Amino acid sequence: MTREFPADSVGLVTPRTHHFEEPLPLDCGKTLAPYDLVYETYGELNAARDNAILLCHALSSDHHAAGYHSEADRKPGWWEVCVGPGKPIDTNRFFVVCSNNLGGCKGSTGPMSINPATGRPYGPDFPIVTVRDWVRAQARLADALGIEQWAAVVGGSLGGMQALQWSIDFPDRLRHAVVIAAAPRLTAQNIAFNEVARQAIMADPDFHAGRYYEHDTIPRRGLAIARMLGHITYLSDDAMRAKFGRELREGKLSFGFDVEFQVESYLRYQGQSFVERFDANTYLLMTKALDYFDPAKDYGDDLSRALAHVQAKFMVISFTSDWRFSPARSREIVRALLDGDKEVSYAEIKATQGHDAFLMPIPHYLDVFSAYTGRIAAECSHE
Amino acid sequence: MTREFPADSVGLVTPRTHHFEEPLPLDCGKTLAPYDLVYETYGELNAARDNAILLCHALSSDHHAAGYHSEADRKPGWWEVCVGPGKPIDTNRFFVVCSNNLGGCKGSTGPMSINPATGRPYGPDFPIVTVRDWVRAQARLADALGIEQWAAVVGGSLGGMQALQWSIDFPDRLRHAVVIAAAPRLTAQNIAFNEVARQAIMADPDFHAGRYYEHDTIPRRGLAIARMLGHITYLSDDAMRAKFGRELREGKLSFGFDVEFQVESYLRYQGQSFVERFDANTYLLMTKALDYFDPAKDYGDDLSRALAHVQAKFMVISFTSDWRFSPARSREIVRALLDGDKEVSYAEIKATQGHDAFLMPIPHYLDVFSAYTGRIAAECSHE
Repeated sequence: MTREFPADSVGLVTPRTHHFEEPLPLDCGKTLAPYDLVYETYGELNAARDNAILLCHALSSDHHAAGYHSEADRKPGWWEVCVGPGKPIDTNRFFVVCSNNLGGCKGSTGPMSINPATGRPYGPDFPIVTVRDWVRAQARLADALGIEQWAAVVGGSLGGMQALQWSIDFPDRLRHAVVIAAAPRLTAQNIAFNEVARQAIMADPDFHAGRYYEHDTIPRRGLAIARMLGHITYLSDDAMRAKFGRELREGKLSFGFDVEFQVESYLRYQGQSFVERFDANTYLLMTKALDYFDPAKDYGDDLSRALAHVQAKFMVISFTSDWRFSPARSREIVRALLDGDKEVSYAEIKATQGHDAFLMPIPHYLDVFSAYTGRIAAECSHE
Repeated sequence: MTREFPADSVGLVTPRTHHFEEPLPLDCGKTLAPYDLVYETYGELNAARDNAILLCHALSSDHHAAGYHSEADRKPGWWEVCVGPGKPIDTNRFFVVCSNNLGGCKGSTGPMSINPATGRPYGPDFPIVTVRDWVRAQARLADALGIEQWAAVVGGSLGGMQALQWSIDFPDRLRHAVVIAAAPRLTAQNIAFNEVARQAIMADPDFHAGRYYEHDTIPRRGLAIARMLGHITYLSDDAMRAKFGRELREGKLSFGFDVEFQVESYLRYQGQSFVERFDANTYLLMTKALDYFDPAKDYGDDLSRALAHVQAKFMVISFTSDWRFSPARSREIVRALLDGDKEVSYAEIKATQGHDAFLMPIPHYLDVFSAYTGRIAAECSHE
């Protein structure tokens, strides 16, 4: 029996891998070679090759943005809400590309890959990668796919930072940048949360200085704690209150240290299930890329100067209850673009879900997003 | 050479210990006996015995609220800013008592104490204690000191919760309650942060299920992570930005996982120094007491019903940048008191320091606090 996928899903998808031999220069001064990028595509590239959209993923997601990997697959890709036929990223109109970032753990070259210099997994020897490095690698993938210019580069959270970086580094290679639930750089508090997560991982005796693969173990406890902490920052206080309140799992206090409140149960589950599907060294790298992201730094901390040569038009979206990257942070991006007389649309979506709202089917969000991408689609060639 | 302490300090102080033989019934159903409470007093009890103020301490502090333990002591007590001659808690006018809570690690009976039933430290067998248990123990200390009625019970954060509980459990034994930077109960987010901290401690292999004393070790890494995380919630985003921004310790990125940003250096220092002075089992107990605090629970979640029999007059103080227990949480207490026609003063202090503001010398805060305690002092007998 063949499974019926929803009509607005891209359905079955198969990841592809592109192998690169030419060394990639990195911000840290090292070069990486050879390397692979795993990616998925949805929809069809038109003859003019002008309807391609690049999706950039956030901290713990990957190239699997939409659809299903098998008939038995229960969960679709991470942005199924926004990517598919008739959705904001409409696969009937756009050719959509999403790749796993370098340093990842889902198929692109990363800490779990074999280091050709040693014949062992890179582990802690994998170089620190930056948002700029990712954008450079994505540009090479675009070359390989024959995409001269993206109709849009789109992303939420750390993905939004990549879209912003694209507009700075390759101003003529994208017509639109859609930056959702992002910030122009992390605050001290953002960095502090990342640092606690890293310390939790690195303090786990099973971390073995990042060489845990060779010890046939993983820093299970540390990575779970990092994820639990991350989750608190993804949800709003209100969302947690609505979802869990002070509900007790067994209905009464146990006067012990086992799970008591529903929120504890939820967090422990999130931590434990994450450990099964994500690599700790990759988590460390992704948090560092976040900490380092600061495009204004080379321009005297003046973001509008950093954006001076941007040619893309912008759509910036934020969510009212997001306290990880609050609307005020998105407004910094909008203001810097306006200061430079760039074209920018901005929407602040009323949402209770916190930072995670960018992954949620919030009608006003989807409407605003679709309205903007509809405009992008209208500009593409129609054969 | 004798050291000169500041004129507005209580100067040299010596903790005392009261030994209790009569078993203390606890909310968990167990009883504790015998037990000790260590406490300090400042100022003089007047002949009418009506000028006594009880200070209740927060999560990681203790009975040492003011003054110095020795001539060589570099740091004064945790509330030196507010307690001393001429200060809001004016030791020229009040007799001030502060005791270390049961379950503590600074001299009162707690997990590090010897369990008479086994001859070994209690460790994880120390019963879970609640705010109500602490108040019950403090009432016995008041009996022992011959204090029938407190002029006021005062505390910040978890200490403020004890003041609130006092007003409910012993309505005729205090004339005023001063509740600072507190909340009527924790939110799911508050509990979530506590749970991550507990998991960090309990996941540390050196925790040994709470019996680390017997293994001659301490869960150093877990406790440090718990403290680092706590610190993020004590400071505001703005305070962190003002204090650290994105300053780099070495002036440039290192592309490694050692300390890079100043905020990382600060947090690691806070974590490591905490490990030297605080017990992990006590930390677990204190966070549970926070999670469990919920005086409205037995009154159909109606705080004003819980406060119906309160006789104390209230002063409630909150700080604008406190996101751990925000002004909105203090206003819940104020509203519940007003709904019950109780007498309450409320001040929302403009402060950038976050939750920690209640420990800081903020002029408006000290003025408001002094004005209220001046009124309390005026009501006391003058021989």
